Amino acid sequence: METVRKGDYILLYLDSKRSFLVKATDRVFHTHRGYLRLKELIGKPYGLRVKSSLGAEFTVLKPTLKDLVLKRFRRITQIIYPKDVGLILTYTGIGPGFRVAEAGVGSGALTAFLAYYVRPDGRVYGYEVRQDFLKNARRNLAKTGLMDFIELKLKDVREGFDESELDAVVLDLPTPWEVVPRAYEALKNSGVFVSFSPTINQVEKTVEALRRWGFVSVETVECLVRNFKVKTGETRPETVMIGHTGYLVFARKSMLELEV
Amino acid sequence: METVRKGDYILLYLDSKRSFLVKATDRVFHTHRGYLRLKELIGKPYGLRVKSSLGAEFTVLKPTLKDLVLKRFRRITQIIYPKDVGLILTYTGIGPGFRVAEAGVGSGALTAFLAYYVRPDGRVYGYEVRQDFLKNARRNLAKTGLMDFIELKLKDVREGFDESELDAVVLDLPTPWEVVPRAYEALKNSGVFVSFSPTINQVEKTVEALRRWGFVSVETVECLVRNFKVKTGETRPETVMIGHTGYLVFARKSMLELEV
Amino acid sequence: METVRKGDYILLYLDSKRSFLVKATDRVFHTHRGYLRLKELIGKPYGLRVKSSLGAEFTVLKPTLKDLVLKRFRRITQIIYPKDVGLILTYTGIGPGFRVAEAGVGSGALTAFLAYYVRPDGRVYGYEVRQDFLKNARRNLAKTGLMDFIELKLKDVREGFDESELDAVVLDLPTPWEVVPRAYEALKNSGVFVSFSPTINQVEKTVEALRRWGFVSVETVECLVRNFKVKTGETRPETVMIGHTGYLVFARKSMLELEV
Amino acid sequence: METVRKGDYILLYLDSKRSFLVKATDRVFHTHRGYLRLKELIGKPYGLRVKSSLGAEFTVLKPTLKDLVLKRFRRITQIIYPKDVGLILTYTGIGPGFRVAEAGVGSGALTAFLAYYVRPDGRVYGYEVRQDFLKNARRNLAKTGLMDFIELKLKDVREGFDESELDAVVLDLPTPWEVVPRAYEALKNSGVFVSFSPTINQVEKTVEALRRWGFVSVETVECLVRNFKVKTGETRPETVMIGHTGYLVFARKSMLELEV
Repeated sequence: METVRKGDYILLYLDSKRSFLVKATDRVFHTHRGYLRLKELIGKPYGLRVKSSLGAEFTVLKPTLKDLVLKRFRRITQIIYPKDVGLILTYTGIGPGFRVAEAGVGSGALTAFLAYYVRPDGRVYGYEVRQDFLKNARRNLAKTGLMDFIELKLKDVREGFDESELDAVVLDLPTPWEVVPRAYEALKNSGVFVSFSPTINQVEKTVEALRRWGFVSVETVECLVRNFKVKTGETRPETVMIGHTGYLVFARKSMLELEV
Repeated sequence: METVRKGDYILLYLDSKRSFLVKATDRVFHTHRGYLRLKELIGKPYGLRVKSSLGAEFTVLKPTLKDLVLKRFRRITQIIYPKDVGLILTYTGIGPGFRVAEAGVGSGALTAFLAYYVRPDGRVYGYEVRQDFLKNARRNLAKTGLMDFIELKLKDVREGFDESELDAVVLDLPTPWEVVPRAYEALKNSGVFVSFSPTINQVEKTVEALRRWGFVSVETVECLVRNFKVKTGETRPETVMIGHTGYLVFARKSMLELEV
Repeated sequence: METVRKGDYILLYLDSKRSFLVKATDRVFHTHRGYLRLKELIGKPYGLRVKSSLGAEFTVLKPTLKDLVLKRFRRITQIIYPKDVGLILTYTGIGPGFRVAEAGVGSGALTAFLAYYVRPDGRVYGYEVRQDFLKNARRNLAKTGLMDFIELKLKDVREGFDESELDAVVLDLPTPWEVVPRAYEALKNSGVFVSFSPTINQVEKTVEALRRWGFVSVETVECLVRNFKVKTGETRPETVMIGHTGYLVFARKSMLELEV
Repeated sequence: METVRKGDYILLYLDSKRSFLVKATDRVFHTHRGYLRLKELIGKPYGLRVKSSLGAEFTVLKPTLKDLVLKRFRRITQIIYPKDVGLILTYTGIGPGFRVAEAGVGSGALTAFLAYYVRPDGRVYGYEVRQDFLKNARRNLAKTGLMDFIELKLKDVREGFDESELDAVVLDLPTPWEVVPRAYEALKNSGVFVSFSPTINQVEKTVEALRRWGFVSVETVECLVRNFKVKTGETRPETVMIGHTGYLVFARKSMLELEV
């Protein structure tokens, strides 16, 4: 039975609207529903329910990467959300052993997920042009224990990637179309290209560039997730939902030279 | 540079509507756009473009798991689609090293994806109550090269899972609520429960059962993916889309006993 | 050229986020962007642009019914939104000359739209069981100038409608299924039944009751509207959208007795 | 009690997938489920259920305008669907008494709905540049009995509308932005502009033109309708849905001259 170790991130779940991601240390954790002495949780099994000083019941959960990214990453840029990361994974096959370049790193949310899923033999090469973003991303990623699978680089990918024969290139940039030629160079043949963009115009330019560079299987999608309130006799979708994050463009590299 | 080996599955991409997943063998592959001698592709690099006897240009791609599942799995049941598998992965953290039980296996689509993502140290225990489904799933999964990470079992999970301390249990069953107690037993504390169901009524019963068994962080979502036709000046969503596959219920196991 | 008359409701449009629906009177209208002397607008043409004391430009628009309902109706209940009213109109043909019963009136939003569209020869019979709701609805509806086409009634429709041979019955009630037999009695043959409900469970019970009472052409839909930010090069859907208001059930009355 | 008259269009409803819109004449109506002698229905009340020669039960419904448009209009162009017409009505207030210009008429579907809702005092001026479309539209519209409220014109509206002081202008054209100046001239101040377009690029150009011409309250939306299969215990959305018809742009005319 897995137990809470000192220094672990733990998720204190109160109810569907409120949960708290904290580090198991000596400190006392205060909420509007009373306090918890975190020290007392150390050595206890995950899944435990505990009562706060005011009698509110919390469950001690082991956070998933999603919890960690959404609750502990300092976001100084828009991040790519788990729903979109999910599509990136299953639509491309990015998984254990893949060598993936990502640009730009931003706050590191996608970097974290990619690193998580290419383990243990794969590697994520994360490019970012802004020093301050990279510093913040490094701090965020340090919380995940995934840095062994990540190389962060301060570089404008319009000048090219350092790697070649990559399995995949994933872009989250304002002008992804400018990087299509560099992605072509860095990818192995038949390799996977992905770009995430908030606007239709970015999509159009990227798709046109991909076609020009001979990429095939070019596909553009958007993904909408709707949450439900479930209670027998009262089940209904939530009133408010996220109507847009961005569009995903997928493509595969083909060799420009034709052979019969 | 990776080359096509004899016996490889290869994806022959023609255009956005048509691509063909075939095995690289001695045979001749016929399409309405002419034939290709597959033998001549063996030893050639992936990403190559080739011309058919009628001059149609095909690109030889290495298929992703999605390609293989959608094009080469014989489907005798409804399958869980990549968009929903993506959410399952990122919403739960199922990934490298996870021990996951799945019921029912059906045609094996989800089994394949789970196995792909728990590699190389994880394991998928696939339960199926129907002999004919299991046989078909085994044949489908053999095509993926992932059988080293999968144990298929002919068993009704309402009688319980054989494993314990599982990281995750994923259900795709007509009556998932009946299996909630068995999932509770088989999961480790703080472990992840997932259920996929086409109808709202299944969701309601499952959520009620989860609450009764003390599961927390119960969340129900649906995922819609919309494809776009992209061409500068003519960009628009596709006219027809998949409006529904199923709802996903996520939950975390907490210990039923309360400890202060 | 139509001009602002004293006592008119006018819409002062500032920008896409802010517009104000006020009455053209002697008073001074204050905003965070300066004040406007409303008296000075009287006698001026609609469509005029005016500057506030701080130089902000406002356009004087004639409000549509939608503006009036969304901005001047005091809402003490959930209302049916214009997107759903639109479907009700075109899916049923409710239009000029129709005699329609509606229950419950709630805040009167749907009542207003129905009255607007059955003009000049049709009539809306609005039933409401709560005195306070009815009083508020009456006050709201007085602002629309549509009371000539509306009869409001304090009555529980589970006891029956006062009318017969109605063209349509529209329900926005917590338990619409209980009113299906009363709707059957009040409708003319081939008449239209509509019910709006937030939950799936209400829909199920209503649909079952409709089938039991021999209604045909039973159809259930939901309507989602997504707003876009449009600017060349930056066009994208709004980040947040309304994910749910309610489901609409449509049906047609058929005679229970069979004739060959 | 309303009865079927000779020459009436009647809707023969069989089940949720099949209904037939026919004219009540002397002929025999054949279906795969047996035949009906239509003559025998004349003089019978609407709402009646009748049995075919093979015992299948049909309900005789009075068709709504939606039924007529979707089942009896010959469509030689894409039409605007009832869901989008509904939004046009409630978002703009187009209703009884409105004078509306529409271009292009296409197959006349929107023309029919507009005419239906501006009755009895309003009028629809329908412009179409193609003789063959206009001829077909005229034939379609003749079936609706609404021609008293419609004037059809063979003219390219880029040369201007014949009317002025219109309450609303509704465009369904390939290049609506070219008509924005003409709409400005033809509309009364504070009047309503609507444009329906399948592509984002058309929307962008139209919105830019509207802003240039001083239109205010510019709003762009799309509307998605999802159908449900409802049966207690098995309720779920339909698998396939219409993912896109077009975008709607709404705006209000303001006077270009500024007055303080």
